[in-house]
Amino acid sequence: MKLYDLAGADDDLRFSPNCWRIKMALEHKDLAVETIPWRFVEKDAIAFSGQNLVPVLVDGSKAVSDSWEIARYLESAYSGRPSLFGGPAAEGLALFVKFWCEQSLNRIVLRIILPDLFAYLHDKDKAYFRESREARFGTTLEQYALPAEEGVSLLRDALSPMRSTLQRQPYLAGAQPTFADYIVFGTFQWARSVSPVALVETADPVFEWRERLLDAFDGFARKARSRGA
Amino acid sequence: MKLYDLAGADDDLRFSPNCWRIKMALEHKDLAVETIPWRFVEKDAIAFSGQNLVPVLVDGSKAVSDSWEIARYLESAYSGRPSLFGGPAAEGLALFVKFWCEQSLNRIVLRIILPDLFAYLHDKDKAYFRESREARFGTTLEQYALPAEEGVSLLRDALSPMRSTLQRQPYLAGAQPTFADYIVFGTFQWARSVSPVALVETADPVFEWRERLLDAFDGFARKARSRGA
Repeated sequence: MKLYDLAGADDDLRFSPNCWRIKMALEHKDLAVETIPWRFVEKDAIAFSGQNLVPVLVDGSKAVSDSWEIARYLESAYSGRPSLFGGPAAEGLALFVKFWCEQSLNRIVLRIILPDLFAYLHDKDKAYFRESREARFGTTLEQYALPAEEGVSLLRDALSPMRSTLQRQPYLAGAQPTFADYIVFGTFQWARSVSPVALVETADPVFEWRERLLDAFDGFARKARSRGA
Repeated sequence: MKLYDLAGADDDLRFSPNCWRIKMALEHKDLAVETIPWRFVEKDAIAFSGQNLVPVLVDGSKAVSDSWEIARYLESAYSGRPSLFGGPAAEGLALFVKFWCEQSLNRIVLRIILPDLFAYLHDKDKAYFRESREARFGTTLEQYALPAEEGVSLLRDALSPMRSTLQRQPYLAGAQPTFADYIVFGTFQWARSVSPVALVETADPVFEWRERLLDAFDGFARKARSRGA
């Protein structure tokens, strides 16, 4: 299996939140994968997938893109291995977690880590990133970035339902980690890769949850190159 | 089975969101229940439950309070009937939906419907409600209420992850309604009972979702006395 995985200035800097979802899902399924460093401008390298974003998973003759679709593919193609979702109803609710994470957390985290993220991009990606993101944000990267303190305060409020949930159970779906956790963990790993900002206080149940996932699979995610703690 | 159910000025006006969660759950399990109208000041009537809020479900010699605990009780005691959660992982994620609903939607909806809610309380509840809520809000009911237009705009933003989910599947957990839906539906039924304000536009997937739940169980919820459409 091969996974096209966004890389930064150096090949071993892998920060994409959506790629992290899949790297954790592959660990969950105990599936070996070769990751291929990829940059935003290398659209030709993944044109075979019929679209131009990573993650792209290649499994034999099959290519799957979009982290949600890759997770569904893995659950179906490797149904004999530990379930990623924990059943159809939990898969449905994980979709809600995905949209909550993307529409609430990711928007805030991006504005916190934006200067660091830009600094750690490969040089060949910088013009593309600036142009595409400034068009999306309707302003410059520098204007869109939030002072860390302000962003962290917004993030702590946004994490409120997750915090309350994790006060009652170790993972979002209960006793065991599922793809719903990897969705949100991808966001934290994105920040951790490039930014030294502490997103949550150590006393926050969200911090303890992140620690458990950093430790999962023999510390797989903790071993990744990162600037944050 | 008996359910102590918050009532307003008239016995047939039943607006409590948490009681609606359980009335839908009982329909889902196809369990007959006698509902007992209850007012906030009637703490003595439910003192046997060891606390002072509704819903309280009495099933033979067993009394259960707190809507989340009642749902878990029903799932466990009536496990041979249609599952309320759709499995342990979906139950875990429904807890996240519960906190999201309470911390995000309920706070906004309350501020939209507050003048109407107060007007429809039983006279004997009005002093208790004003005093307890004004202490909680740190301001008067009148100051805490939001103009409908402003509240509806906030609510539409807050519903964003649910809207995205319902663009892909008919219910929060996928193809079938589960307790996660009844949690959020309770909030809409609370508003519908006392307020004529349209919380979502008819073109919104959330509106269609609410329509499906109003129609569920032979129109059980639609038949309830209500001021809204």
